[in-house]
Amino acid sequence: MKALVFHGPEQCAWQEVPDPELQAPTDAIVRIGTVTVCGTDLHILRGELPEVSPGRVLGHEGVGEVVETGADVRGIRPGERVLISCVSACGHCRFCRERAYGQCHGGGGWILGRTVDGTQAEYVRVPFADLSTHPLTGAAERPDAVLLSDVFPTAYEVGVLNGRVEPGDTVVVVGAGPVGLASIATAQFFSPGRIIAVDPVPARLDAAKRIGADAVADSAEGPERLVDDLTEGLGADVVIEAVGSPRSFESCTRMVRPGGRIANVGVHSRPATLHLEKLWSQNVTITTGLVDTYSTATLLAQLAAGRLPAATLITHLLELDQMEEAYDVFARATDTGAIKIALGEAARPLVARER
Amino acid sequence: MKALVFHGPEQCAWQEVPDPELQAPTDAIVRIGTVTVCGTDLHILRGELPEVSPGRVLGHEGVGEVVETGADVRGIRPGERVLISCVSACGHCRFCRERAYGQCHGGGGWILGRTVDGTQAEYVRVPFADLSTHPLTGAAERPDAVLLSDVFPTAYEVGVLNGRVEPGDTVVVVGAGPVGLASIATAQFFSPGRIIAVDPVPARLDAAKRIGADAVADSAEGPERLVDDLTEGLGADVVIEAVGSPRSFESCTRMVRPGGRIANVGVHSRPATLHLEKLWSQNVTITTGLVDTYSTATLLAQLAAGRLPAATLITHLLELDQMEEAYDVFARATDTGAIKIALGEAARPLVARER
Amino acid sequence: MKALVFHGPEQCAWQEVPDPELQAPTDAIVRIGTVTVCGTDLHILRGELPEVSPGRVLGHEGVGEVVETGADVRGIRPGERVLISCVSACGHCRFCRERAYGQCHGGGGWILGRTVDGTQAEYVRVPFADLSTHPLTGAAERPDAVLLSDVFPTAYEVGVLNGRVEPGDTVVVVGAGPVGLASIATAQFFSPGRIIAVDPVPARLDAAKRIGADAVADSAEGPERLVDDLTEGLGADVVIEAVGSPRSFESCTRMVRPGGRIANVGVHSRPATLHLEKLWSQNVTITTGLVDTYSTATLLAQLAAGRLPAATLITHLLELDQMEEAYDVFARATDTGAIKIALGEAARPLVARER
Amino acid sequence: MKALVFHGPEQCAWQEVPDPELQAPTDAIVRIGTVTVCGTDLHILRGELPEVSPGRVLGHEGVGEVVETGADVRGIRPGERVLISCVSACGHCRFCRERAYGQCHGGGGWILGRTVDGTQAEYVRVPFADLSTHPLTGAAERPDAVLLSDVFPTAYEVGVLNGRVEPGDTVVVVGAGPVGLASIATAQFFSPGRIIAVDPVPARLDAAKRIGADAVADSAEGPERLVDDLTEGLGADVVIEAVGSPRSFESCTRMVRPGGRIANVGVHSRPATLHLEKLWSQNVTITTGLVDTYSTATLLAQLAAGRLPAATLITHLLELDQMEEAYDVFARATDTGAIKIALGEAARPLVARER
Repeated sequence: MKALVFHGPEQCAWQEVPDPELQAPTDAIVRIGTVTVCGTDLHILRGELPEVSPGRVLGHEGVGEVVETGADVRGIRPGERVLISCVSACGHCRFCRERAYGQCHGGGGWILGRTVDGTQAEYVRVPFADLSTHPLTGAAERPDAVLLSDVFPTAYEVGVLNGRVEPGDTVVVVGAGPVGLASIATAQFFSPGRIIAVDPVPARLDAAKRIGADAVADSAEGPERLVDDLTEGLGADVVIEAVGSPRSFESCTRMVRPGGRIANVGVHSRPATLHLEKLWSQNVTITTGLVDTYSTATLLAQLAAGRLPAATLITHLLELDQMEEAYDVFARATDTGAIKIALGEAARPLVARER
Repeated sequence: MKALVFHGPEQCAWQEVPDPELQAPTDAIVRIGTVTVCGTDLHILRGELPEVSPGRVLGHEGVGEVVETGADVRGIRPGERVLISCVSACGHCRFCRERAYGQCHGGGGWILGRTVDGTQAEYVRVPFADLSTHPLTGAAERPDAVLLSDVFPTAYEVGVLNGRVEPGDTVVVVGAGPVGLASIATAQFFSPGRIIAVDPVPARLDAAKRIGADAVADSAEGPERLVDDLTEGLGADVVIEAVGSPRSFESCTRMVRPGGRIANVGVHSRPATLHLEKLWSQNVTITTGLVDTYSTATLLAQLAAGRLPAATLITHLLELDQMEEAYDVFARATDTGAIKIALGEAARPLVARER
Repeated sequence: MKALVFHGPEQCAWQEVPDPELQAPTDAIVRIGTVTVCGTDLHILRGELPEVSPGRVLGHEGVGEVVETGADVRGIRPGERVLISCVSACGHCRFCRERAYGQCHGGGGWILGRTVDGTQAEYVRVPFADLSTHPLTGAAERPDAVLLSDVFPTAYEVGVLNGRVEPGDTVVVVGAGPVGLASIATAQFFSPGRIIAVDPVPARLDAAKRIGADAVADSAEGPERLVDDLTEGLGADVVIEAVGSPRSFESCTRMVRPGGRIANVGVHSRPATLHLEKLWSQNVTITTGLVDTYSTATLLAQLAAGRLPAATLITHLLELDQMEEAYDVFARATDTGAIKIALGEAARPLVARER
Repeated sequence: MKALVFHGPEQCAWQEVPDPELQAPTDAIVRIGTVTVCGTDLHILRGELPEVSPGRVLGHEGVGEVVETGADVRGIRPGERVLISCVSACGHCRFCRERAYGQCHGGGGWILGRTVDGTQAEYVRVPFADLSTHPLTGAAERPDAVLLSDVFPTAYEVGVLNGRVEPGDTVVVVGAGPVGLASIATAQFFSPGRIIAVDPVPARLDAAKRIGADAVADSAEGPERLVDDLTEGLGADVVIEAVGSPRSFESCTRMVRPGGRIANVGVHSRPATLHLEKLWSQNVTITTGLVDTYSTATLLAQLAAGRLPAATLITHLLELDQMEEAYDVFARATDTGAIKIALGEAARPLVARER
C-alpha cells in the first residue's frame, strides 16, 4: 500500500510500504476513507518529538471501513464504517477504568502515527479496536466525521469541559486555529453569554465569527482591554488557551476573573511564567490535558443531529495521494488560509462538483 | 484601649488608641479574648503590603465576647462568645452569593488588620458581623478556636477541598508551618491512603508526624524521589503547596501524577515557572485561592467533637500585652520552634498551671 | 391602594387596602408594574394551603419600581426597576449561606402572597430586599421579566439543573404548562439530543413544539412507548415531572433509563407509589425542590441576550385592575388556552397595538 | 468438583458437578479459597428470582487462586491470588465506559451465581476476567478480602458515595445487617459528625456501635424522634436504607433534612409510598443502585492499610464443604447472630486456633 512515511527532520514521502497485519486479537485493520493532517504532525516533521522514529507512518485521525478484525474484537465488523480515535485505550489499566484513555498505561494512549504506524495511509492497524473506534451509522456516516478523531474531542474535553463553561459565562478562546474554532463551536453547547476569540490572523477571526464568536480581538492589540470592557473590569469566567505559547498562556492568566478557569489546550514546547504573586489569592483553576476521547459518542450524535459545524473547518479537499501537498498547504496556513484539509473520499464529490 | 499599631516597615507598637465604635448597622464590637499572629502579619510588618497604612491596628484572627451590635445585626448578641472570621462578607455581592466571601466586592473580603483596624487589640469593630462571626457554643467555646479564624479554614478550603482529597489518595503537603500542618490534619477527614510532609526543618517534620503525616521528607533532599518510590513512579494524587515560593511550587508540579491536583495555599511574592512543555498533556489541575471561610461552621463542629487538633499547633502562650514579644518569637520561628502563639485568656489557665 | 385579597376558599376580591409600609431596615416598597397569576395561587384560592389566612394579599411574582428602601438596603434605590423573586432570603441562616434560599430558616423562603402580603397589588413590601430583588437594567428591563420571578428559575433549577441535563441527552418533560414549557426552553441551554414533551392537551403540545420540543406525546396514549422507540428501549436520560400528580410521577419512573435522573418540579398534594422493586437496582436519582432563585441573575442575562423566550409563554394581557378576570381566565386554562397572563404595564403597548 | 447447586425453591445441595472450563478468550478459571453467602442468595433459594434456573451453581463473592486464563486475559496470571467482583464487566458497552459495570449491556453485570455458575464451588469460571477480578497483593492478600466482592463496595458506592457523606454530616443507617454495618464503616472515610444506626435487633445495634455508630435506635421505638432530638428538629443530612422494605424506606423519608439525601441500598420486592405531598418542596435527593464495583481498588488499599474492619463482620467460620450448614446458619441470623459467614481457607487458621 501507499503511506506517508517520516524519514527524519523535514523529510517525509508518500511511498509504498507493506500492508499492515493483525498483531493482537484486539486489533482491527481499517481501509482509510478520509484522513487529515494535524498541527502535531508538523511538530513531528520538524523533529520535535524524539519518540517518533524514521520509518514511521504518520497520522492519528481517520474515517474508514473495517476490513479485518482480531478474534476478540466484539464491537465492530468488516464492512462497517468507523471513526478512528486519535487515542487508543487498553480498557483495563487504572487510567482507562477512569476514562482517562489519553493517559493509558496498558499500551494505548496517543500511539497512532507516533509509536505505531498511523492513518495517513491506505490501510491502518488500529490496536484495541473496540475502545478505539466508533461505528459511523446514519447521519454520522459522513467524511467530515474525521474531525472527531482529534480536533473536536480535544476542544470539547480539554477546553470546554475542563473549563466548565456554564450558561451565561464569558468565554475567551485564545487561538482560532482548528482546535480554537472547535472550542468556539462546542462551547455553545452550554449557552455562554458571550464568546470572545483572540488571534493575530484576520481570516481566522472571520472564521471565528462565522462559527459563533460574539466578539474578536487581535492578539497584538490588547485583547485584555476588550475583555475588561465587556466584563466591567471583572475578567472572563473561562479562558481557553489554544495556541501553545508562553505569551499566549500568560495573556490568559490576565484575562480570567477571580474564581475563573483557564483550560490549556495548546501544545507547549517551552515553560511559561505563572504570576503567582497575583494569582495566589484569585481562586483560579488551571487545567491541562491530552484528549481522552470519552466524549466522542456524544459528539458524533451532535454531528448526526446537525449541531456540530465540523465541515466548516475544512478549507481544502485533496486526494489521498496528494498527502505531501497537504503537508505543504497546511504548513503555510497563514498564506493558504488552511484550517483543516480533508484527503480521500471526502474530496471526490466536492472536487467533482467544482470541475 | 491598647492595640498593636503598624507604623511602617519594621515598626509596630502595643500602644493606647481610641476604642472602636459602631459605624454601620451591621457592625459589632467584640472584646478580644484570644488572638494570634499570622505569617501575613510579618509580611505587613516588612512593608510588603502597600495597602496597609501606618496607623493601622493589625490582626485578622480572634475569639472574644460581643459587647455591642448595630441595629441590623440579627445573629449574635452582646454577651455571646464568638469566633471572628479573617474574612468579612457583605452577603449581597455576586461573590458572597456564591460563598466566595474572600472575593467580596461589597466592602468585605480580607479587610481586618489590613484596610480596617484589626483584632490585635482589646476591642475590635467587626463589619458585617452576622456573616463574619460564628457563635461559640458548647464544646466549641474554647480559646484554641482562634485557629479557626484563618489557619484551619485556609488549609481545609484552599488546600484540602480545592485539592479534592479522596479516600486512598496519596497526598503531599509541602511546607509544615501552621497552614501545612492544618492541611495535614484536615486532609484526614477524607481518609487518604498516605500523607507525605515536606519541610526543611526537622522540628516541623516531627510536628507533621504527630498531627498525622505517614512519611516526611526534607525539602532539600529530593522529596520527589520519596514520592516516586511510594507511588511506584506514578506521582501523588494531590499536592498542597503551603510555602509560597517558586522553588516549592515547581517541586509540587514534579510530584503530581497525571490526572492529579496541585492546590496552592502559599502566599507568593514572586512568579514561578510553569513547565507547560511537560504539563500540557498531563491532565493536571492547579488551583489557587484566598480563604472564603464557608467551611467554618463545619470545622467548629469538628472541633467541638474532638476531631480537630487545633490546640496541638499552639506552641506558645502569652498575655495580650505581650504582643510585641509575640511578633518577635513568631518571626524567629526556626529558633523558637513557634508554630502558633496564642495571646490572651488562652494563656491564663495554662500559664497558671505551669507556675 | 388596590390589591387582590384572599377571603377564604373560593373567595377573593380586587379591593382597597392600606398601603404597605417599611417594617424592617432591610425592606423595600415596590410599585408593581407587571404581575401574573401562578398555579399555586389557584391552590390557595381553593383553600388547599391552610397557612394562608383570609385577608392576605396574594401574588409572589412581579416587576416594578422601587419607591422606598429601609436604612440597610444597599443594592437597590428608589426609582430603579426591579424583578421581585418569589422567594425571599434572610442571607444569614445556614440554608441561605448555601444558596438554598427556598429553605430559608431566617424569616424568608416563599412568604410573599402566602404568610406576608404579596404582589397582586399596586404596591408591595419586599422583605430582605437586597437578596430578594434583582435590578432590571438594559435589555432586561422588559415586562416579560416577570416570568423570572418564579416560572423560569423553578423550571431551570428544580427541573433542568437538578436533572443535570447534558449535551446529547434525551430529555422528557411531562406536563406542558408554564413550568413544563420553561423547562423545555431552559433545557436547551445544555444542547440535549432531543426533548420530548408529554401532555394531554394538544394546544400545549403545540406550544411545546414552538418552544423547542423535538417530539410530543399525548399523556393518555402511552408516552412510554415513544420514549422506548426513540431510545432503542433504553429510556430517557432525564425526566422532568411538571404536573404534580401520582400518575404522572409514576409514568416518569417508567421512562427513565438506568443511571438516569427524575427531577420533580410538580407540586403534589397526594403520595405516589415508588416501584422500588424495579428501581432499586437501576441507579436512578430522584430529586425534589422548591425554587431557590440562585439562578435568577443568569436567567436575566440570558433574557437580555435574547436567549430566553419568556414572552412566548404570555397568552393574555390585562390591566392590573382586571385581576379577578385573570384568575378566572387562568383557572379555565384548558378552555381559554391561557399559559401565563401578564397584568399591568405589559398590557398597555400590546393591547394598544391590537386595537 | 463440588459446588452448591440450586434445585428450585427451598432446594439446594453441595454436590458433584463438572469442572468449569474456559469459554471465551477473556475468561479465567479460579480455584476458590474463601467464599461467603449473601442475603440475595437466600432470595434466590426462596425462588424469588425467576431468572435463576435450577441447576445453577450459586454464589457471587469469592477470593481464590487463578488456575487458567484465556488468550486475551492480560492483567492476571495463573498462580496469582485474586478477589472476584460480584459484578462482571465487558468493558466496552456504554455503561462500562462510564464505570457503571453493574448496568453492563455487553454480557456482564451481576451474572455470577445468577445467570452463569457462581463461586460457591471449588472452581469458578470468571467471565471478562481482567475487569472482573482484582489481584490481591501484599497486605490485601487476606481471606476477609472476600467481603470486598460485594458487601463493602455495595455499602460504599450505593450507600456512602451516592449519599454524598461529607465531614460533619449526620448520617442515619437504617438496617444493621452486613451492608448496613459496612455502610457505617465506610461512611467514616468522610468524617461525619455522627452516625446513627437503626435496627430492631439489639445484637446488631451492638455490632453497629463496635464498628463506629455514635448512637443507635430500635426501629420499633421511633428512630425519627432520636434523629429529631440530635439534629434540633432539622433531620439527617444523609439517610442510608439498608433493609429493603417499604416501611423502612418510608421511615428514611421522614428522617432526612431539607436538602438531604436518601441513598437506597436495600433490595426491595414491593413498592413503597413516596410522600411527595410533603417531599416535593424539600430539595431531597433519592438514589438507588446496584453496585458497580468501581471502588474496589480503593477499598482494597484501605483494607491493606488497616482502615477497613472487614474481619469484624465475620461471625462464623466454616469449611467449604459445610456450605449447606452455612445457608442454614445465615438464614436464621436472628437466632445464630450471623452477620457474615466465611467458608474455606479462612476457616482453617482460626478454627485451628480455637481448638
